[in-house]
Amino acid sequence: MNTLKAAPLALEGIAKYLDAELVGDADKAITGISTLISATSEHLSFLANPKYLGGLQETSAGAVILSRKNLALCPCSALVMDDPYWGYARVSQLFRAVKHESGVHPAAIISDSASVPASASIAPGVIIEAGVVLGENVILEPGCVLGQNVQLGDGCHLHANVTLYHGVKIGAQSVIHSCSVIGADGFGYAPHEGRWEKIEQLGSVRIGKSVEIGANTTIDRGALDDTIIGDGVIIDNQVQIAHNVIVGDGAAIAGSTAIAGSTKIGRYCTIAGAVAISGHIDIADNVHVKGMSLVSKNITKAGVYASGTGGVMENRQWQKNAVRFRKLSELAKRVESLEKGLAEAPD
Amino acid sequence: MNTLKAAPLALEGIAKYLDAELVGDADKAITGISTLISATSEHLSFLANPKYLGGLQETSAGAVILSRKNLALCPCSALVMDDPYWGYARVSQLFRAVKHESGVHPAAIISDSASVPASASIAPGVIIEAGVVLGENVILEPGCVLGQNVQLGDGCHLHANVTLYHGVKIGAQSVIHSCSVIGADGFGYAPHEGRWEKIEQLGSVRIGKSVEIGANTTIDRGALDDTIIGDGVIIDNQVQIAHNVIVGDGAAIAGSTAIAGSTKIGRYCTIAGAVAISGHIDIADNVHVKGMSLVSKNITKAGVYASGTGGVMENRQWQKNAVRFRKLSELAKRVESLEKGLAEAPD
Amino acid sequence: MNTLKAAPLALEGIAKYLDAELVGDADKAITGISTLISATSEHLSFLANPKYLGGLQETSAGAVILSRKNLALCPCSALVMDDPYWGYARVSQLFRAVKHESGVHPAAIISDSASVPASASIAPGVIIEAGVVLGENVILEPGCVLGQNVQLGDGCHLHANVTLYHGVKIGAQSVIHSCSVIGADGFGYAPHEGRWEKIEQLGSVRIGKSVEIGANTTIDRGALDDTIIGDGVIIDNQVQIAHNVIVGDGAAIAGSTAIAGSTKIGRYCTIAGAVAISGHIDIADNVHVKGMSLVSKNITKAGVYASGTGGVMENRQWQKNAVRFRKLSELAKRVESLEKGLAEAPD
Repeated sequence: MNTLKAAPLALEGIAKYLDAELVGDADKAITGISTLISATSEHLSFLANPKYLGGLQETSAGAVILSRKNLALCPCSALVMDDPYWGYARVSQLFRAVKHESGVHPAAIISDSASVPASASIAPGVIIEAGVVLGENVILEPGCVLGQNVQLGDGCHLHANVTLYHGVKIGAQSVIHSCSVIGADGFGYAPHEGRWEKIEQLGSVRIGKSVEIGANTTIDRGALDDTIIGDGVIIDNQVQIAHNVIVGDGAAIAGSTAIAGSTKIGRYCTIAGAVAISGHIDIADNVHVKGMSLVSKNITKAGVYASGTGGVMENRQWQKNAVRFRKLSELAKRVESLEKGLAEAPD
Repeated sequence: MNTLKAAPLALEGIAKYLDAELVGDADKAITGISTLISATSEHLSFLANPKYLGGLQETSAGAVILSRKNLALCPCSALVMDDPYWGYARVSQLFRAVKHESGVHPAAIISDSASVPASASIAPGVIIEAGVVLGENVILEPGCVLGQNVQLGDGCHLHANVTLYHGVKIGAQSVIHSCSVIGADGFGYAPHEGRWEKIEQLGSVRIGKSVEIGANTTIDRGALDDTIIGDGVIIDNQVQIAHNVIVGDGAAIAGSTAIAGSTKIGRYCTIAGAVAISGHIDIADNVHVKGMSLVSKNITKAGVYASGTGGVMENRQWQKNAVRFRKLSELAKRVESLEKGLAEAPD
Repeated sequence: MNTLKAAPLALEGIAKYLDAELVGDADKAITGISTLISATSEHLSFLANPKYLGGLQETSAGAVILSRKNLALCPCSALVMDDPYWGYARVSQLFRAVKHESGVHPAAIISDSASVPASASIAPGVIIEAGVVLGENVILEPGCVLGQNVQLGDGCHLHANVTLYHGVKIGAQSVIHSCSVIGADGFGYAPHEGRWEKIEQLGSVRIGKSVEIGANTTIDRGALDDTIIGDGVIIDNQVQIAHNVIVGDGAAIAGSTAIAGSTKIGRYCTIAGAVAISGHIDIADNVHVKGMSLVSKNITKAGVYASGTGGVMENRQWQKNAVRFRKLSELAKRVESLEKGLAEAPD
């Protein structure tokens, strides 16, 4: 567990913060959060999934966030609320370890024409180019590079070594993790006489508010218009989002997924990990794509979608099947012949 | 769109630059490039795909690059040329937003034994180690790290936070986007008594001229010989190229593709996104591999190749099919039995 | 080949280092290592794979590491040992090009509360936050950022631009390549009334000793407990390891593989490239997963596993098969009908 410790919080204060009903010891001092199994008497835990009901009865936690229907089984103090998992999420934010003080470190390099409010926290090694505008309480960790005319809304937090190319705009309260690159050139070239003529990428990237982007993710700038990420979108690590993609509000994109150029992802879509989405595709709102699927055509209605052969099997068995896949069309034709043959057979 | 604006250009000058025939207002001032639909009267647009012919007739653009056959439908000034898409690409380069001035920023750290011409533009936070040799007009953006004895040809441009390990050589006019890593160790180990003995990677990486490499891409150094990227190659974001791979001139590799060690990609191959290519494979010139395919054997002749089950379907339908794939070999045998049975059936 | 040259080594010294039997010229000066085909008389080569036996007979190498059974065919000096490939690995380490001197560069920024021994080598642009503890002989290359309370064991080596978030612990002799990010937040959110409530990631990452991690790889911190990488694990480039994953000792994970949250990879597993592994999965020890496979269920016994349709075929043929996959369940039912029909047919 984390080596940085937050100050203990009284259970009563946590209950108020969560707007939860407190049953038990209001003065109980809580020093951290743990699973039901690992918790000690100083820890708050939670029960959000009925499969852990056994864990509730055996927990050593000082208190547990749970729903009313499980209260009777709770061996310790309880915080009762309708959505305990949401309660866990909110209380986890109280135990955040690292604090950032306002001010500009002398080893940051900031253009005279940049606008950096006194409330911002600018770490050493940060480089801010001309015309950049930062909102209040922005946090820039070491090594971040902000190209010309970048705009960050209030409360944005860039972890170490994030790169934003010129002209990128990010809404308030958004977070970007380390080594992600926003606004690099889209992959656009015109083939001409055996070589690739570069198409200068003249659009930018606009990211909404309350967006979180993982580590080592790339979002390219648009060719002419902008690449757009809506409000409240969450994007995991190692995701590739090509030029002129539009991601709708509240969408979630898991790790190592790749989205090709000019594709539109609907609002509240959830794209699992290692998915590949072709370019110039439209995906409706509320679509869920399962892990490692390929999306190569429009998806026009909400629902769950998948492709591929499913999970692994033992190699010998798999090889036999994979070999047959290579002649699947022929096999289908043979079945058609059999059907005709049988139809013609005397009865 | 980009917040950095280029100075307006007269249409006549653009026509000369493109070697295009100007039909209309030679003095027209052009301030930017847009699609046919978004363009205003100060914008240049282009028609390269017949499906946008309707857009041509309705465009508000000040001028359009198009081929002679579509000239009659153009409602504004025109630049006529055989390959309008190439024209668009070339003219886009005139509207590039960011300029880099020559000179070394005082917050760059450069070894005494490095060779940095006065024409180079070296940003703050750049670190150049011993023995590095830069060509004329090289641009190094903030946070780039060049290991010992790196060599960059004239006009190379490294965007922010690029890392080049020792000994990497890059030809003239090549561009590398942020957080890409060239020359990290190949993944080479000898298994010995239950542990992995590191094989020191003693080769390097040689990259040709006029190569462009996207963001967060990795190209490993060779084990003994070098990893080689040919001239005019274009590589997108999040691509992994393992040790001793050889990529032929003019090849294009799209995002999130992974190429394992010692594989050879032919000239002018186009590898789509999210492809995986096994190690020790030879791929002929002019091969196109479709997105999310696996290449696990040599490809000896030019053409289009693919693997996988195709794009997504609704999950229920997909599950039924995926379950059957697990017994595809058995199904094929049952068809064989049926064929035998029918052959033996009386007629 | 590398432009940095190591000093020549006498063959006798190499033989002692390898504990190999020397047959031939003990004073032979070796300046580098090459393949049998490329080697000149100053080079040491090796024969580890019988398919290169022809290369042995024609080699111009000054000496070759080989097993006793091939000694008779060796045209030059020989170093005889049971496992020549291991010999090659060990001798490659003698020819490592870059040396790092102890000391802290004045352009590194180190918190007063950090512990940095005199034996450490700290490059310019390194940023070390409060409470960091470094072991002896640690090497930090330019641009590395170590968050609060990071701990690195003796001999750890971070290549340029590595980011370690607060509280990450790494065992002795581990190596991390450029632009990898260890300890970024896991992808954890509670959906609530149409938005994603952030679950603060309060665990950390613990990495064992003698681990090597490639470039642009991400390993997320745990939600409550830690993400754990065992001793002697090797991980390639562009790998994504989500929160609370546990990777067993001696496992190997190749490039561009993604592992979702809370999954456990057994000891000595070898996961090939571009694999996707779902979350909350248990994989037994000594499992090998083939390239581009999906693992979506537990694997309870050692062995080789795969999924997918196998490698590419020509696009026309592939399309016919992929289309049939979409109705594979129906095809199977038609075969069942035929089987019933035949069973009912008169004989």
